[in-house]
Amino acid sequence: MKRIGVLCSGGDAPGMNPNVRAVVRAGIEAGLEVWGIERGYSGLIKGALAPLGSHDVSGLINRGGTILRTARCAEFMHAEGRAQAAATLRARGIDGLVVCGGDGSFTGAQLIYREHGIPIAGTPGTIDDDLCGTDHTIGFHTAVTTAVEACDKIRDTADDHDRIFVVEVMGRRCGAIALETALAAGAEVVLLPERPGLGPRECAQRLRHAREQGKTSMLVIVAEGAGKGEAVTKVIADALPDAEVRCSVLGYMLRGGVPTVNDRILATVTGVDAVHALLERGAGCCHHIGVIANRVVRTPLSEVVGRPKIIEADLVALVDVTAGLRPWQSG
Amino acid sequence: MKRIGVLCSGGDAPGMNPNVRAVVRAGIEAGLEVWGIERGYSGLIKGALAPLGSHDVSGLINRGGTILRTARCAEFMHAEGRAQAAATLRARGIDGLVVCGGDGSFTGAQLIYREHGIPIAGTPGTIDDDLCGTDHTIGFHTAVTTAVEACDKIRDTADDHDRIFVVEVMGRRCGAIALETALAAGAEVVLLPERPGLGPRECAQRLRHAREQGKTSMLVIVAEGAGKGEAVTKVIADALPDAEVRCSVLGYMLRGGVPTVNDRILATVTGVDAVHALLERGAGCCHHIGVIANRVVRTPLSEVVGRPKIIEADLVALVDVTAGLRPWQSG
Amino acid sequence: MKRIGVLCSGGDAPGMNPNVRAVVRAGIEAGLEVWGIERGYSGLIKGALAPLGSHDVSGLINRGGTILRTARCAEFMHAEGRAQAAATLRARGIDGLVVCGGDGSFTGAQLIYREHGIPIAGTPGTIDDDLCGTDHTIGFHTAVTTAVEACDKIRDTADDHDRIFVVEVMGRRCGAIALETALAAGAEVVLLPERPGLGPRECAQRLRHAREQGKTSMLVIVAEGAGKGEAVTKVIADALPDAEVRCSVLGYMLRGGVPTVNDRILATVTGVDAVHALLERGAGCCHHIGVIANRVVRTPLSEVVGRPKIIEADLVALVDVTAGLRPWQSG
Amino acid sequence: MKRIGVLCSGGDAPGMNPNVRAVVRAGIEAGLEVWGIERGYSGLIKGALAPLGSHDVSGLINRGGTILRTARCAEFMHAEGRAQAAATLRARGIDGLVVCGGDGSFTGAQLIYREHGIPIAGTPGTIDDDLCGTDHTIGFHTAVTTAVEACDKIRDTADDHDRIFVVEVMGRRCGAIALETALAAGAEVVLLPERPGLGPRECAQRLRHAREQGKTSMLVIVAEGAGKGEAVTKVIADALPDAEVRCSVLGYMLRGGVPTVNDRILATVTGVDAVHALLERGAGCCHHIGVIANRVVRTPLSEVVGRPKIIEADLVALVDVTAGLRPWQSG
Repeated sequence: MKRIGVLCSGGDAPGMNPNVRAVVRAGIEAGLEVWGIERGYSGLIKGALAPLGSHDVSGLINRGGTILRTARCAEFMHAEGRAQAAATLRARGIDGLVVCGGDGSFTGAQLIYREHGIPIAGTPGTIDDDLCGTDHTIGFHTAVTTAVEACDKIRDTADDHDRIFVVEVMGRRCGAIALETALAAGAEVVLLPERPGLGPRECAQRLRHAREQGKTSMLVIVAEGAGKGEAVTKVIADALPDAEVRCSVLGYMLRGGVPTVNDRILATVTGVDAVHALLERGAGCCHHIGVIANRVVRTPLSEVVGRPKIIEADLVALVDVTAGLRPWQSG
Repeated sequence: MKRIGVLCSGGDAPGMNPNVRAVVRAGIEAGLEVWGIERGYSGLIKGALAPLGSHDVSGLINRGGTILRTARCAEFMHAEGRAQAAATLRARGIDGLVVCGGDGSFTGAQLIYREHGIPIAGTPGTIDDDLCGTDHTIGFHTAVTTAVEACDKIRDTADDHDRIFVVEVMGRRCGAIALETALAAGAEVVLLPERPGLGPRECAQRLRHAREQGKTSMLVIVAEGAGKGEAVTKVIADALPDAEVRCSVLGYMLRGGVPTVNDRILATVTGVDAVHALLERGAGCCHHIGVIANRVVRTPLSEVVGRPKIIEADLVALVDVTAGLRPWQSG
Repeated sequence: MKRIGVLCSGGDAPGMNPNVRAVVRAGIEAGLEVWGIERGYSGLIKGALAPLGSHDVSGLINRGGTILRTARCAEFMHAEGRAQAAATLRARGIDGLVVCGGDGSFTGAQLIYREHGIPIAGTPGTIDDDLCGTDHTIGFHTAVTTAVEACDKIRDTADDHDRIFVVEVMGRRCGAIALETALAAGAEVVLLPERPGLGPRECAQRLRHAREQGKTSMLVIVAEGAGKGEAVTKVIADALPDAEVRCSVLGYMLRGGVPTVNDRILATVTGVDAVHALLERGAGCCHHIGVIANRVVRTPLSEVVGRPKIIEADLVALVDVTAGLRPWQSG
Repeated sequence: MKRIGVLCSGGDAPGMNPNVRAVVRAGIEAGLEVWGIERGYSGLIKGALAPLGSHDVSGLINRGGTILRTARCAEFMHAEGRAQAAATLRARGIDGLVVCGGDGSFTGAQLIYREHGIPIAGTPGTIDDDLCGTDHTIGFHTAVTTAVEACDKIRDTADDHDRIFVVEVMGRRCGAIALETALAAGAEVVLLPERPGLGPRECAQRLRHAREQGKTSMLVIVAEGAGKGEAVTKVIADALPDAEVRCSVLGYMLRGGVPTVNDRILATVTGVDAVHALLERGAGCCHHIGVIANRVVRTPLSEVVGRPKIIEADLVALVDVTAGLRPWQSG
């Protein structure tokens, strides 16, 4: 292997830039040439790619976003698009590909591996934290940190005005962002797609009890997959007519910003190992590079794709314990 | 004057806590007793107030929100409520009142002064920056800083995906937050209530020109008084069918958070002078304490109430110049 | 067990407050009374302690420092002092103790357990990350985040002026803070107490090679246990007479600040389990509560005390790979 | 005027990048070509300069440092060096120069104007806030914000351990950074070069009184021009032998980091007006562009150079009032 490519694909995530930096630096260290491909798979199809030197990635360790840009690419879902992409790689003499993305991107990566024999190393670049091959994904920690900082501010105004606030965060099928946000923001209730038994109605009941016991301001975190913030707010406001209930939707700001320490290190560790995996496994490499229990773990992509991670029931219970609502109920 | 009271009223703002701290510390320094009144005028009506010592306000310089809480008080809009409030003050021997709030709160303060002779010093506690007696209000700078930090993050994801983002910020009758946010975030367009000629349609036209000249990602800031973010987004998306347009609403998070350097200093300067104004003007004190051109300025409340500030046309022009859109148009 | 105590001991760490909150909330949830002890073991000796309710710990999830204060207590190192502390606990009917601290504090905890049969649950409250019973300690992540934010700023001025910067961080016997800071800040070299082969002289040599290959600004992170920043700076400046070399010492600021998401969650998880461990193990509880590979782990204090953690050789190697120095050396 | 140059000179400051952006965008808007000159005056002497397009400065609004780099240039202090610089400008057809820097840089700018007739517009790029032609300089606000954030953290650990902390900040002849930091951090005492009557001994006396009245933790801010932090710490520790006194030096980190809202706006306003001043005044332009009382003010460089700003006595008094020390003294 003499030349490898690196691309970002799917929804963006803070930490993609340090991931690209790590791939380039580790590649050069290993004697490889590293090419950067623009806007995900569409850059392969359109031939938008160029070699990257060590200096080109200097200063990326603390930059949000990705200098390569990212995209969802409809053409790549068709065999024809993938054939064109493979042709580009062959034409440029690129022998292996690092794909930084999520479940959808890895589905495509698997196909180009199977159909055209392009060795693949996938790094977990998504804020959703929904990949089973790694404890956390690149971008997740920054997203949670941003959400918690917003909740800290919202808590101030909730306290000042004795209000209940419903805060909606990203997470369609996976409540990981909502759960860690709730725990770290000290929220009173969290609604998760994985916990259908606790919906807006049950939430309203908990809040009513807490108010009866004297709690005046409260925070509810809602993963978008568990209900839209506005809808949850309405249910609560209807159930507690004398409470002031407000809603805040933390949208796209969770996808940007300077990556946190965790995301920089995770991006660096997985980026470096992605290069090593390609070198060591060669033609047999179609693996996901994650970090599980502080160790780098290479998992066949086939065992990662389509198998979403399960969130920790223990952490869910902790929100309930530390919210301090239960003793009041029993009061 | 031997005993004064301090309260926060209306919508909350970061910097109210340092303001309370400054009033208490300056009061004690001047030999006064200072009482803290809870939840705005309603604390006066309900008799929820207590003396504050120097130590009680220790640690408030960098705390968001207000330990006194704040509220909008319907009873105080009636003569009866104000009579009850005045009775509370007399019963406790409180000779003067510092009111940290905005236009609505000062309207009430003027009335209790006129009807019951309670000396008033008003400090500009509102994020809206819409008071003519001061260059800026307490909380405004923190709100803009929060908005700009969010825009920096949103800019990352706009760049990554070549998107147009519409960001709605608070500001119903006053576009100050939107304007400074746009300038400091490097936004391409800003929609202000004070600038009705530039609406969603004109904005969409500017964006189309910019895209034709090669600009791929852009930020539009909208003051809520100039249109709801979602509505503006729809107009732009309809006008630019091949662009990805997204909306983000920065709501209540602008009202909380650790106060910035500016808000801490403004809160301190006005809080200290509020005490001095009460002492020096005594029964004749019904003034607003602001900072204009770096000087503390005391203005009769009658000249402040109901006279919203005009935003600077110069700053509006700067957004257009530095966005870098115009040369492309002429291209 | 009906009543437990909680104290913070030794050097302070961000996250002690959420830890206290978790202990109090989990204790009350379990039907216990929880007493807060002031200023570590000296509060036990002097009898400075009081019961804490759910509301007393409200708002602590995002507060730096510890409302209980902390101290190093010389008297507790003597049997007499410990006897007095045990007497206080018995007099108040306190049946178990949660100690948030580091290695030194746990040494004392072990002794009061052995000598007086006080059940102990220790939570890892120290920024040093040097305890073998947990992947990370409470406060470590906030300290690294603060150090990395400082390095990001220093990198700006290093770049502007083509300078080499030596940044000293805390860590006498353990280089963990220095290592993660170096990795996440993208530093060119890191000097660690655990890596004596790479000292100031070898560092200067690496920097000279890098400069010969065209690198103009560089960052060196030094754990205080590997040399004082000023001394390292002098060695480098002497070896590279035409380079501008500057030093920055990040001291006590690493010990304060709003705890990060990681430290809030780690403090919450270990605080809750400390209560459960006391309840479940009763008189036999003399354990450290840590998190290893995402699982709560209870380890006998005897296996934790005096056995410092070993830092990861893999991470050390990553700094070298991603600094981008080596290919230039071979150039 | 058809072509202008822009350079950064002297010590770096956060906000130089948005200043360069504003100059380039305003220049292009006005129909000019704008060239960027590397590393201050030395770039002129060595001929290191190149044209900048609108896109080259995209993304600079929130970037610390300066893409042009900056330097102190010994050759430019000699007539020969300036002649060479002027020759470069003439050779490239550059008719005017924007210089972002401080007092020293403007001294040189004045000379090249007088000796070679190069029109000059100076923007106040220095963290020191010591220029009389503007209320504040570009970078000052970011430096103060960084210092205050560090003090907030240090206050946590001071409180936890009942300690006195001495914090040294930059500022040799001017105490502006120290003063605003002290005010916004709620420090108990500030030592300023402009206030020689309050030195380490008087400071120690104040602290002793405060401790006698029960204050346990305190913060002292020292401008480096008023004494080195370590020396001040020693004086205090000797005078208060039973207090724990610690020192923290906030060095170069004050010079970097993402510019704050104030610095972005100040950099934008002055950068745009620098271009307009060159166009409007042409050959007669040798002016400093500042903002005084919210208005852009052009002052002849001759009236700015060598005339340091005086800090506000009022603000100094405020530190004493709000520290809450005096009432205790009278106790």
